Amino acid sequence: MGYIARRAERLTPYAAGEQPKDGGFIKLNTNENPYPPSPAVFAAIRGAMKDLPLYPNSDAENLRGAIAEREGVEPACVYCGNGSDEVISFCFYAFFDDRLPVLFPDATYSFYPVFAEFYGIPVKEVPVDGTFRIRVEDYFQPAGGVIFPNPNAPTGTLLQPEEIRRLLRHHTDCVVAVDEAYIAFGGQSVAPLIREYPNLLVIRTFSKSHALAGMRVGYAIGRPPLIRALTNVKNSFNSYPVDRIAAAAAEAAVRDTAYYNEIDGKIAATRGRFSDALEKLGFRVLPSTANFVFASHPDVPAKDLFRMLREKKVLVRHFDKPRIDDFLRITIGTDKDMETVAGILSDLLRAL
Amino acid sequence: MGYIARRAERLTPYAAGEQPKDGGFIKLNTNENPYPPSPAVFAAIRGAMKDLPLYPNSDAENLRGAIAEREGVEPACVYCGNGSDEVISFCFYAFFDDRLPVLFPDATYSFYPVFAEFYGIPVKEVPVDGTFRIRVEDYFQPAGGVIFPNPNAPTGTLLQPEEIRRLLRHHTDCVVAVDEAYIAFGGQSVAPLIREYPNLLVIRTFSKSHALAGMRVGYAIGRPPLIRALTNVKNSFNSYPVDRIAAAAAEAAVRDTAYYNEIDGKIAATRGRFSDALEKLGFRVLPSTANFVFASHPDVPAKDLFRMLREKKVLVRHFDKPRIDDFLRITIGTDKDMETVAGILSDLLRAL
Repeated sequence: MGYIARRAERLTPYAAGEQPKDGGFIKLNTNENPYPPSPAVFAAIRGAMKDLPLYPNSDAENLRGAIAEREGVEPACVYCGNGSDEVISFCFYAFFDDRLPVLFPDATYSFYPVFAEFYGIPVKEVPVDGTFRIRVEDYFQPAGGVIFPNPNAPTGTLLQPEEIRRLLRHHTDCVVAVDEAYIAFGGQSVAPLIREYPNLLVIRTFSKSHALAGMRVGYAIGRPPLIRALTNVKNSFNSYPVDRIAAAAAEAAVRDTAYYNEIDGKIAATRGRFSDALEKLGFRVLPSTANFVFASHPDVPAKDLFRMLREKKVLVRHFDKPRIDDFLRITIGTDKDMETVAGILSDLLRAL
Repeated sequence: MGYIARRAERLTPYAAGEQPKDGGFIKLNTNENPYPPSPAVFAAIRGAMKDLPLYPNSDAENLRGAIAEREGVEPACVYCGNGSDEVISFCFYAFFDDRLPVLFPDATYSFYPVFAEFYGIPVKEVPVDGTFRIRVEDYFQPAGGVIFPNPNAPTGTLLQPEEIRRLLRHHTDCVVAVDEAYIAFGGQSVAPLIREYPNLLVIRTFSKSHALAGMRVGYAIGRPPLIRALTNVKNSFNSYPVDRIAAAAAEAAVRDTAYYNEIDGKIAATRGRFSDALEKLGFRVLPSTANFVFASHPDVPAKDLFRMLREKKVLVRHFDKPRIDDFLRITIGTDKDMETVAGILSDLLRAL
């Protein structure tokens, strides 16, 4: 095949978690929400069906307005895209230099090095510490940009705003992107800090806390020059990445704060109970503020547990990567799901 | 602002046609369909709402299956993306060389040079002839790739499969991408030629003939190695570009051939009547097989007509570019819309 360009031949694509085709699985491998989206979302989708022959608003203005209102910022501080992966990809293109490396943790979202490779951006992975935490001092080194999830994935560990502030104080010359995909499950957002730091970009998704993974909407919050740069990148790639129905669904979700506060709280409570159950079974469970836990058992390799759980129709995520290959990432589902999983793990461990 | 990467600073984004916020316009500027999508589309959207917390199938398998069935090819010959702009963007990344220029017409879809700039791909614009037609012989020159719409936009002129075959026979070493956004309105697709030419990629959209511009779905048809390359590129950018509702809507649209044949035929008939009306008013109208016409008046600059029509609440498209700045591109709406527009143009010309 001589038809593939060299830039495309060298790619090693991201491998997403399995989406099983046959049913019957307890699916705890891609951090989806076990609860349905707000009823207002369904009404909004029905309402958006009438104008499908017309292109959507190219800048998702209504959705951006709703997000801006909730965050207490100007709409010019909000950018929306086709899932936060697209937003992060554009962030790499728009902000990360090709002369200095972009820094991110060695144990983190494994799409980051793929985005960097896609655009030919040099990277430097910064090791998390012995407790799998990000230490901001380790990022005090030359950088073309910094990106990390907060809470981090797949570890679930959280940085406090004061720590991120220290990072921002050190790196004033490049964009620091904080990927808050999981912030609603217990962390404190740094979005208010965009007022103080013109190089801070906060990225969020509707896929996790808003129960809309099937809908593909993500967004970024930052000062207008950053948002304009993302918009220019978008308009050099696809004028209309957010479709009419996705924009309407996400807008309705943003406005129903009460509903989402309730399900966020339920998930956090279930996470506490499930973490306790795992610890009783001898697991080491990293402290998590996300909708998943990262856990390791001293006696059984994670890879074996992954396989045994899959045989019992429970899908979790295992990363075959140095430092984290002893861990399972288990999404928090309903209480009933998690009791079932804890029971299965208890049986498996007893039988060994 | 030192935060923007050099690659992003040099971009000149694509400018999409205006999407007016106030109503009351006859909107003939972005080649949208004046008819609603098939009733089956609305039913499919309602049916897809239940699984929104779950990620969609990463490769839009059901939709690809439906397209493959209609085209008489294997699903491995079909790639789906978030609108054909995203598909074309990935085509530039996956196939077009950075050593030799990609060739496209000088009067064509003005997003092509933007995609090339986005990835740093050299381009060479090949002039259309004096009748605004693409002459395939003009493309017999060194190329890292070739792309053009068929029928071409904004001119509306069509190449026959035999001409495209001549091009494919000449260019066996690079990908030839035929952007069939408007093929359903009267042209003959070259999709069946993928059996003979492993370097042919046919790109289509649901935005025009399928009346789903608000939904953002496009696709490509080609031999499996090309589709695999596009899939690798996609998986290095965004694992799930086609959301659950978009995939379900597009699948329902593909399956309702009878409905879409009917509205395609109505638009072609309206185009004939409207072209006749324009010619009676003294316009030169290029022969169109698309859902728009490209027309020029000997006495009145197109820019002035554009402005006068806008004042009368009719939006058409004018491109302020050499060679085509004497033309208006007018989308074909309903018969009633086009009679109104012909009447307004008649009044305007009489008043001059």
